Amino acid sequence: MNTLFQREYFEHRHNGPDHSEINNMLETVRCASLDELIEQTVPENIRLKTGLNLPEPLSEHHFIKEFRKIASKNRLFQNYIGMGYYDSITPAVIQRNILENPGWYTAYTPYQAEISQGRLEALVNYQTMVMDLTGMEIANASLLDEATAAAEAMTLLRDTRKGIRKKGTRFFVSELCFPQTIDVLRTRAEYMGIELLIDHPDNLDVTDEKLFGVLLQHPDSNGAINDIRPVIESANEYQVGVAVAADLLSLALITPPGEMGADVVIGNTQRFGVPLGYGGPHAAYFATKDVFKRQVPGRIIGVSRDKEGNPAYRMALQTREQHIRREKATSNICTSQVLLAVMAGAYGVYHGPSGLRRVAKRIRALARLTELGLEKAGFAQVNEFYFDTLKIDVGSNDRKNQIREEAQRRKINLRYFEDAFVGVSFDQAKEPEDAAEIISLFSKIAGVSEPDTQQLMDMVDVDYPAAMARQSDFLTHEVFNSYHSEHEMLRYLKRLENRDISLTHSMISLGSCTMKLNATTEMLPVSWPELADIHPFAPDDQAEGYHQIIRELSDWLCEITGYDSMSMQPNSGAQGEYAGLLTIRSYLEAKGEQHRNVTIIPSSAHGTNPASAVMAGMKVVITKCDDQGNIDLEDLREKVAQYRENLAALMVTYPSTHGVFEEDIREVCDLIHENGGQVYMDGANMNAQVGVTSPAIVGADVCHLNLHKTFCIPHGGGGPGVGPIGAAAHLTPHLPGHFRLPGDNRAVAAAPYGSPGILGISYAYIRMMGARGLTNATKIAILNANYIKDRLKDHYKPLYVGKNGRVGHEMIIELRTFRQTTGIDAIDVAKRLMDYGYHAPTVSFPVPGTMMIEPTESENKAELDRFCDAMISIRSEIAQIEQGHWDKENNPLKNAPHTSRMVTDDDWKLPYSRKKAAFPLDWLRHNKFWPSVSRIDDVYGDRNLMCSCPSPEEYADEEAGV
Amino acid sequence: MNTLFQREYFEHRHNGPDHSEINNMLETVRCASLDELIEQTVPENIRLKTGLNLPEPLSEHHFIKEFRKIASKNRLFQNYIGMGYYDSITPAVIQRNILENPGWYTAYTPYQAEISQGRLEALVNYQTMVMDLTGMEIANASLLDEATAAAEAMTLLRDTRKGIRKKGTRFFVSELCFPQTIDVLRTRAEYMGIELLIDHPDNLDVTDEKLFGVLLQHPDSNGAINDIRPVIESANEYQVGVAVAADLLSLALITPPGEMGADVVIGNTQRFGVPLGYGGPHAAYFATKDVFKRQVPGRIIGVSRDKEGNPAYRMALQTREQHIRREKATSNICTSQVLLAVMAGAYGVYHGPSGLRRVAKRIRALARLTELGLEKAGFAQVNEFYFDTLKIDVGSNDRKNQIREEAQRRKINLRYFEDAFVGVSFDQAKEPEDAAEIISLFSKIAGVSEPDTQQLMDMVDVDYPAAMARQSDFLTHEVFNSYHSEHEMLRYLKRLENRDISLTHSMISLGSCTMKLNATTEMLPVSWPELADIHPFAPDDQAEGYHQIIRELSDWLCEITGYDSMSMQPNSGAQGEYAGLLTIRSYLEAKGEQHRNVTIIPSSAHGTNPASAVMAGMKVVITKCDDQGNIDLEDLREKVAQYRENLAALMVTYPSTHGVFEEDIREVCDLIHENGGQVYMDGANMNAQVGVTSPAIVGADVCHLNLHKTFCIPHGGGGPGVGPIGAAAHLTPHLPGHFRLPGDNRAVAAAPYGSPGILGISYAYIRMMGARGLTNATKIAILNANYIKDRLKDHYKPLYVGKNGRVGHEMIIELRTFRQTTGIDAIDVAKRLMDYGYHAPTVSFPVPGTMMIEPTESENKAELDRFCDAMISIRSEIAQIEQGHWDKENNPLKNAPHTSRMVTDDDWKLPYSRKKAAFPLDWLRHNKFWPSVSRIDDVYGDRNLMCSCPSPEEYADEEAGV
Repeated sequence: MNTLFQREYFEHRHNGPDHSEINNMLETVRCASLDELIEQTVPENIRLKTGLNLPEPLSEHHFIKEFRKIASKNRLFQNYIGMGYYDSITPAVIQRNILENPGWYTAYTPYQAEISQGRLEALVNYQTMVMDLTGMEIANASLLDEATAAAEAMTLLRDTRKGIRKKGTRFFVSELCFPQTIDVLRTRAEYMGIELLIDHPDNLDVTDEKLFGVLLQHPDSNGAINDIRPVIESANEYQVGVAVAADLLSLALITPPGEMGADVVIGNTQRFGVPLGYGGPHAAYFATKDVFKRQVPGRIIGVSRDKEGNPAYRMALQTREQHIRREKATSNICTSQVLLAVMAGAYGVYHGPSGLRRVAKRIRALARLTELGLEKAGFAQVNEFYFDTLKIDVGSNDRKNQIREEAQRRKINLRYFEDAFVGVSFDQAKEPEDAAEIISLFSKIAGVSEPDTQQLMDMVDVDYPAAMARQSDFLTHEVFNSYHSEHEMLRYLKRLENRDISLTHSMISLGSCTMKLNATTEMLPVSWPELADIHPFAPDDQAEGYHQIIRELSDWLCEITGYDSMSMQPNSGAQGEYAGLLTIRSYLEAKGEQHRNVTIIPSSAHGTNPASAVMAGMKVVITKCDDQGNIDLEDLREKVAQYRENLAALMVTYPSTHGVFEEDIREVCDLIHENGGQVYMDGANMNAQVGVTSPAIVGADVCHLNLHKTFCIPHGGGGPGVGPIGAAAHLTPHLPGHFRLPGDNRAVAAAPYGSPGILGISYAYIRMMGARGLTNATKIAILNANYIKDRLKDHYKPLYVGKNGRVGHEMIIELRTFRQTTGIDAIDVAKRLMDYGYHAPTVSFPVPGTMMIEPTESENKAELDRFCDAMISIRSEIAQIEQGHWDKENNPLKNAPHTSRMVTDDDWKLPYSRKKAAFPLDWLRHNKFWPSVSRIDDVYGDRNLMCSCPSPEEYADEEAGV
Repeated sequence: MNTLFQREYFEHRHNGPDHSEINNMLETVRCASLDELIEQTVPENIRLKTGLNLPEPLSEHHFIKEFRKIASKNRLFQNYIGMGYYDSITPAVIQRNILENPGWYTAYTPYQAEISQGRLEALVNYQTMVMDLTGMEIANASLLDEATAAAEAMTLLRDTRKGIRKKGTRFFVSELCFPQTIDVLRTRAEYMGIELLIDHPDNLDVTDEKLFGVLLQHPDSNGAINDIRPVIESANEYQVGVAVAADLLSLALITPPGEMGADVVIGNTQRFGVPLGYGGPHAAYFATKDVFKRQVPGRIIGVSRDKEGNPAYRMALQTREQHIRREKATSNICTSQVLLAVMAGAYGVYHGPSGLRRVAKRIRALARLTELGLEKAGFAQVNEFYFDTLKIDVGSNDRKNQIREEAQRRKINLRYFEDAFVGVSFDQAKEPEDAAEIISLFSKIAGVSEPDTQQLMDMVDVDYPAAMARQSDFLTHEVFNSYHSEHEMLRYLKRLENRDISLTHSMISLGSCTMKLNATTEMLPVSWPELADIHPFAPDDQAEGYHQIIRELSDWLCEITGYDSMSMQPNSGAQGEYAGLLTIRSYLEAKGEQHRNVTIIPSSAHGTNPASAVMAGMKVVITKCDDQGNIDLEDLREKVAQYRENLAALMVTYPSTHGVFEEDIREVCDLIHENGGQVYMDGANMNAQVGVTSPAIVGADVCHLNLHKTFCIPHGGGGPGVGPIGAAAHLTPHLPGHFRLPGDNRAVAAAPYGSPGILGISYAYIRMMGARGLTNATKIAILNANYIKDRLKDHYKPLYVGKNGRVGHEMIIELRTFRQTTGIDAIDVAKRLMDYGYHAPTVSFPVPGTMMIEPTESENKAELDRFCDAMISIRSEIAQIEQGHWDKENNPLKNAPHTSRMVTDDDWKLPYSRKKAAFPLDWLRHNKFWPSVSRIDDVYGDRNLMCSCPSPEEYADEEAGV
């Protein structure tokens, strides 16, 4: 084609270095071309011989036009389906300044707390809100969805009863729980040896010796508020644990389960201003008693103090049990839904206690108004007490179908029960006119004239009987009572944002986490109403746009991985692992090989791997790695021989977590297959494979992808993630199912397609990059890593390289040698990088005391050079300690990070200059990011666990001390 | 109504203080109620007795739903109309991070340069881009639109010829200029005593003694690139000035007018990534020779240095001639289109020279491809040389109409000339498929088969003859060659954003400028394609949504002002003034009173008032103010008596620029009317009137509104503004016209409705506030001002108060007394406020040496208190100087603002602590904004005027000095 007509390729915006930079870097790494570099890096026997077969790339502009057409195939109905998902109003100030703001969505998980104080504070707000509303003593910073939160509650209750109810293997689940919750519990219970009793709470026998816990829904799935106090009390009496799935908003009006003695309260916070997104992502909450804090899944943000004694937030508890007990883990949770939890917490801050109460009362009033109208039309409503949901007896299935038809005509989604009942759930987005419309609909079907809604409105009151009504205050903390005007809220959000380092500031070269560009064009559609406002259980014909996106994205991911099929259901990489292993189990069972239950995992694996295996009922066997970080083939052969009978699977990451393309990978996979096992590939390093090799070529049978790593979904400050799994043809029939999907396979998540609301991001990335762009991205990612390796090699030793001396898309550098001579640890280098405006690479994973650097393809040479300059400068600072110029305990690394408070202190006693402290390189003068607190005291935080908003007095004390 | 069903009122988000804060503040100002405060503040005889008749307010959520319906009444066609407006692709990274980012759009005009370095740099990029592309030596930071830029060029040429061509009163305008440009020139010329010769350039007689200048369009309105060099050369020979209106993008390919000897080059930068918005806002550019720099209209950003010698940007030249020579002013320009200029400059940065060249070539190639196709179909194209536009001879008007019908069917807008020609203009958003579609359309009409476009594509080349082709480099500066990947661009934009104080940080209490909340919900629709992508000359039936918005907004503004009609055309307050005075002139002329040409203006008036009057051909007479800042009735009576014969108008601001509701205003207006004059009201202080009084009740006949003050359009960092005028019934027939509107009234702007792209902001504000919300806003604005007055009164004397001791919505505080005792000026207090995280109030307007504070209704008590605390703290610092603790020249005020560079300097010699310098109040520890440069040296900047990007060496020098 005449090059004059060449489109504007997105590839040139996504991939950092331009042509001349690439050539320049190739010189540094002494390579003639990108292709030569790939030949030297990726083993020949697994290299893709033909290009990917993907549609020609669209420019950003044309993608948006095309995607608008696809999105418009979704049809927006008024939703009254309920079942845990509700229309909600995202305050515009939150939408624009959090959801649509790269300052929030491109941040990483807040491991480096000193440069993450903004979202840590936002998460503490969220935790405080959950604790206050549920009446519990502690809450975590969110889980993936309500159903998995319920499963985690089950696990917690089992674990915490162990000493008390020794035979506890039974868990009672109220049949009045949401069906998706029951389904996920079924899946989870199966391989954990838990027997589920699914029944009406009236049939609960708390004296059952084997019973360890109970799950109730409150208000229940029908919308009824039942008196659950007697159940809880009798369970308490027998030390049977009680978990309650509660609608958080309803707790503004009714007595919270915490005040009735529940042990765990869980639920969805979606209706706190988070769009439906056809099922996700949303943040599920998990609240419990203080005594169970060490068993809480996921992460808890706590308040500690920094080196100077100022209050400072940090991740206080991270179960991430894989770190703690690997093979014995019972939870594989490491992703939380940070961005959505931040939004939900901000919603609480913006509305405050009286605002939330008003919102809740209005919803209840609308339901009551509708009930009155339906009564006039002759319909009986069966919930004696309710919050937002009416369950209406329509007399016959015929009449139910008439209602359904009329509702469809009016673009209204109701909930249709299997028998002759219809559910109507109200939400914040509804108005009295909407209630009138529902009344009109039913009146028409009943053939009666519509009542005067104005008149009915005057009859509405919303008070509950005293015993049911909430009496206690909530959200009394200042933060929930200060930012109710938009200006104040805007500034509060901006203040928090400005405390956090994100990709808007500089490269975040986190090995294994692939912090690449989250392009704006990919993000724009997320807040389009056609994508945001679809209920996960809406009829399929309202979600044709979504189905096209899911279908095409699946096809492309199959092309990229070489697989036959994809399941979009898993909401994180870890959930993908779990789903993948279940798929293998299901396949083996279908073959009559249910005895196969051993999973071999290399010692270098991601910590989630063994945890997921345990959850899937597997026995974990660790195989060693050699000096080069590769799987030790000999040890593997031994392990395979030893466990051959029961071998179910090998879990392998490729390229390895050491950043190297292992030459033996094909042989490894063959060995497993020959011995009756399946190969599960951890897709964490897929960014080094796309277009160059593939899981299928390598020989893996199933693999999860981290769409939030390789395929551009932003990390959101610590979530959401999306972890679809791809499977070879023989595994396809065994992929996750859902009650909304055909077949009866197990569900791993509450929504059939996981988090469709953000799948468009990955769709956009692939559609705009095309085969060439994606393949170039992989090559440049590898080039960038090798460039850093070569620029740093005289200063920091690369720990592992491939046979030609190349690293993959990431590398581990040695830092342990400094300990002996200078007392400097990897963590000191990490903190010192903050003074240079950088987020540290991954610290101490997979090798303790080292750092793993992954620059990704989106960084250009200028940024790589700045980072390398910073690292080299830090090395020269270490040299100063080596040479005795600085004390081992008093030097810029140990004292890092330096805050503006420190370097402007009139009393400066450190043995180096203020400039050295805060502006060690000249370009920092033009681009300084100030950490908002100094080194955080983890020990103090551990000893004084505090997970809700600190009192203003704490800050007052601090100020007095200035 | 049952209050349970109360909607969520936007009023409670827009207005800052809540109920309890209001009561608290009322106590401070010793008033029982808001109403009592208003009674004490606003004269009884002008108070509105009934509430405003406006629609019931919508909640934010429902407004967006409603507004989507209205927007969807606009129909999106493919635009090929051209005429200065083109589809353009806004890079998503620019859309999200500038256009949709409150950090950019809520900033004020960069008068306080130390906290505005980000957008000043962005504007210097813009200026450099314009200079480079046009080949000129200097460029300003934008004007309102191409047509007014042409008018300013005319004025500049006249003024700069004065010594040379003494009889110069004639200006030649090529008839090949855009019609809207010619119309605005006609308007402007009339009252400036300039005779326009509108003719074909071939008929230009440069020897005409009366001729002072020439305006050419290049490429011309037909799209033809003519050889304008001979015209320019012969004009140069006779010292006739030459202005060229040029398509900036075309100059990437063809010889720029600057290289051919043009004196001025002007045009629109809309196609540099700025949405069409049905006509605006966009930034017009104005470039000229260095020798004319003192005559350049608008603002020029220059590079100076700060106190420590670091490069620092500032506004170098502001013609704003009203400041300089008031009654003799020839330009009233003070708004520029900063936000749009920032976007256009960023577009240049993101694409760089090779990117722009590629974009331009592609456009040209598409035009050429189409020409080839049309040739095959038998159509002759008449432009021998062209950039993006074909002019096609279609043979007959019948055929033209067939083409029009077919084009409409295909949703295509072409340009239809009066005779049998059709224009087709290409742009960045078009693809080869679009060219094929045009070819297909014409082929169909011609009844021939479509040619093979693929084949034609191979025949396309885009080279111009050497004499016509651009030979020179452009955009060679580093800034245009560094940020081409999205990550780098994102970070560059973020870095610039973080250097500027905006409403996202703190209150900006600029008296007269009304920096209120720009609510997100108001802003969201601005980037909807249904609003962004409509061509100003698209057929009316494609813009029904816009027409509804304009109609309803006009109706509401009429209700608010008490007027009969509104014109949305003026693009700024100053243009509104000018348009209002023209309306008065036209009315007087129609009455046969063309001799009336005296406008009386109080000495306290905004500087634009006399400038606008002069431009409208008025003689300006100044009337005095009394000690209380009120119009001196006696002096006014004398002036009226003196000029009674020729009295045309009084221009008055109400409440006065002194922030006081004058008691005599009715009497003043009556006096003018009794003597045959009309009253023009400057609407700058409308924020104190809405719902409480109105221009009509006060007695004014015509008034402009600053939608960017009172009605929530953001200041955009110094523009856009929107200045519609409202008129009483007798003036309605005399409001501005346009060739696209019925009638033949004069146009003041290029587009018929000015800047419709942002009218939705004001529409949203009124629609969501309703009558009660708007009226409460006014009352709270007055309460907030009086609260500040009372909190500060023991520290700073309020200069003017009304008869009950109240101020209006703003107040002036005395600072001049400090000069004598301490050497402290208002400017020192302004700079010191930066250290406290505040933008200064208005400095030295309207009273030199004072400050005018306007908090607006959007600030809550907490923010007002923080500001007052800062002011009181500064007062105590002044006291330290008074008491001799600090030297008059070496104290925190004179040294302000303090940068992080200063306070971290290892060598600290100032007579106060670092903490005092940078953290004088404790809350700054949690919310510090660091000025990026210290006090800027204006004298150095004036002596060394430099208005393009500084070389990297300048920064290198600086760094070496650190």
